Amino acid sequence: MKIVVITEKPFSENAVKGIREIIEKAGHEMIMIERYKKKEEVIERIKEADGVIIRSDKIDEEIIKAGEKIKIIVRAGSGYDNIDIEACNKARIVVMNTPGQNSNGVAELCIGMMIFGFRKGFKEGKGRELKDKRLGICGCGYVGKRVKEIAEGIGMKIKIYDPFITTENQVKEIEELFEECQIISLHLPLTKETKGRIGYELIKRIPYGGMICNTARKEIIDEEGFIKIMRERKDLIYVTDVAPTSKVFKKN
Amino acid sequence: MKIVVITEKPFSENAVKGIREIIEKAGHEMIMIERYKKKEEVIERIKEADGVIIRSDKIDEEIIKAGEKIKIIVRAGSGYDNIDIEACNKARIVVMNTPGQNSNGVAELCIGMMIFGFRKGFKEGKGRELKDKRLGICGCGYVGKRVKEIAEGIGMKIKIYDPFITTENQVKEIEELFEECQIISLHLPLTKETKGRIGYELIKRIPYGGMICNTARKEIIDEEGFIKIMRERKDLIYVTDVAPTSKVFKKN
Repeated sequence: MKIVVITEKPFSENAVKGIREIIEKAGHEMIMIERYKKKEEVIERIKEADGVIIRSDKIDEEIIKAGEKIKIIVRAGSGYDNIDIEACNKARIVVMNTPGQNSNGVAELCIGMMIFGFRKGFKEGKGRELKDKRLGICGCGYVGKRVKEIAEGIGMKIKIYDPFITTENQVKEIEELFEECQIISLHLPLTKETKGRIGYELIKRIPYGGMICNTARKEIIDEEGFIKIMRERKDLIYVTDVAPTSKVFKKN
Repeated sequence: MKIVVITEKPFSENAVKGIREIIEKAGHEMIMIERYKKKEEVIERIKEADGVIIRSDKIDEEIIKAGEKIKIIVRAGSGYDNIDIEACNKARIVVMNTPGQNSNGVAELCIGMMIFGFRKGFKEGKGRELKDKRLGICGCGYVGKRVKEIAEGIGMKIKIYDPFITTENQVKEIEELFEECQIISLHLPLTKETKGRIGYELIKRIPYGGMICNTARKEIIDEEGFIKIMRERKDLIYVTDVAPTSKVFKKN
C-alpha cells in the first residue's frame, strides 16, 4: 500500500523518520508531499495513495475525487475542520484524528504566551503575574484540561465554560466566563456553531487589563468585531499562534 | 522623617502610590530619586535621608558617607549584594531585604522564558515541550521553590541542588545536577562563593540540546568560560533577564 504524507508545514525530521520506519516495517511505501505551494501538486500525486496522513492541510472534494484509491485519511492533530467529511463519507473513506496527542504542547505554548503577554514581551518594566488571576478556559477538551493543570500549579483561579462536560468551577453561559475572568483561553473546536463566536459583544465583557489567548482556530474569532473592540479597548492584550486573515486586521 | 526612594529602574506607578500612602499616613515625607543617570545625583539628594528604599541600585561607601542621617536601608527584593554591608555596619545603619516578595514574579518569568526558549521564540516549526524534561533547580530558596511548584504542574522531573536545605530529589554535588538535567534554572544568590561559579566545566556537562535559564545575577556566570562553551556547543540554549557585561559576550 502507498501511504502519502501531505504536509505543507512539515513534521519534524525525527517524526518523519519515525513515521517512515513504522510504514516500511509494515511492508508499505511512504510518499512525501512536503512544503507544496499549490493544490495541484497534491492532486497530481495523490492518485496512487491508499492512505493519507495530513496536518492542517486542506482536503476538499476535488482532492478526494483525485485520490480514487484512498481508503483512510488520518489527521495528525485534533481538529478535522480542514477535511470535507461529507465528501469522504460519499467516497467511503475512513477519517481519523489524533485528539490529545499534541495537547500538552499547545497547553504549554498557551501558558508561555500568557506569561509573555502579561510581561509585555519580556521587556523591562511593568510586568504582571498570572498568580491569583482568574483564568477562563473556554472549551475544556484535551488542551483545556492541560492548561487547567498547569495554571493550577501557577496558582490561577480557574473558571470553565464547556457545554459538553460537567466539572468544577463551571459557568453556564459563555458571557459569564468573559465577565469574570481577566484571562480568557480559547479551546473551542471550529464548527458551524463556533465560527465567529468570539466577537465584539463577548470581548467587551472582559475586565480592564484583560487578555485573550487563542491557540485554537482563527476562524472562531469574528474579525470585524474583534478589530472594533481592540480599537476601543487599548487595555486588552491578544496573544495567539494563529494569524488572522483580514487585511484590516494586519494593519492593526 | 524623610524616606528617600532610590530607583534607577522605577517601581510601577501603583507601587509608588502605595508606598507614598503608607509613608505619608505614618507622618513622614517621601522623596523620589527615579531614573537617575549618575551616582552624583544620588549623593546630592541623599543627605537629608533618614530612611532609604532601593531596588537593585548600588549603595556603596561613598553614598553611605553622604547619607549622614541614614538609619535604615530597605532593599525591595531578595539579593542585597548591591549594598556595601560592611560600610553600613560601620555607620550603624540597619539593612533589610524583602525575600520572597517578588519570588512568584521571577518564577513565572523563568517558566515563561523556558517555554519561549524551547519554542525558539514562539517561531513556527520545531518546538520542544517542557513536560517530562529533567529540570535542575540550582539554589532552592523562595524563587526556586516556586519554580518547582509550577514545573510540577507542567509535569517536569525535578532535581535540586542546594547545600543549605534538605529536600526530595536532591543531588549532593552541583556537577550531578548539570549532568542529569536538560534544563538548569539558576537561583543562587550572589556571594563570594557563587561569583563566577557557573562556567565552562559545569556547563559542558549539560546533556545535548539543553538549556540554562538565569533569572539570578549575571555575576554568577563566568563569562569567559560561558562564551567558550557556547561557541563549542551550538545546541545549548541560554535564556536570561540579566544582560551580561562583557563586550565579547555581546558580540556572540
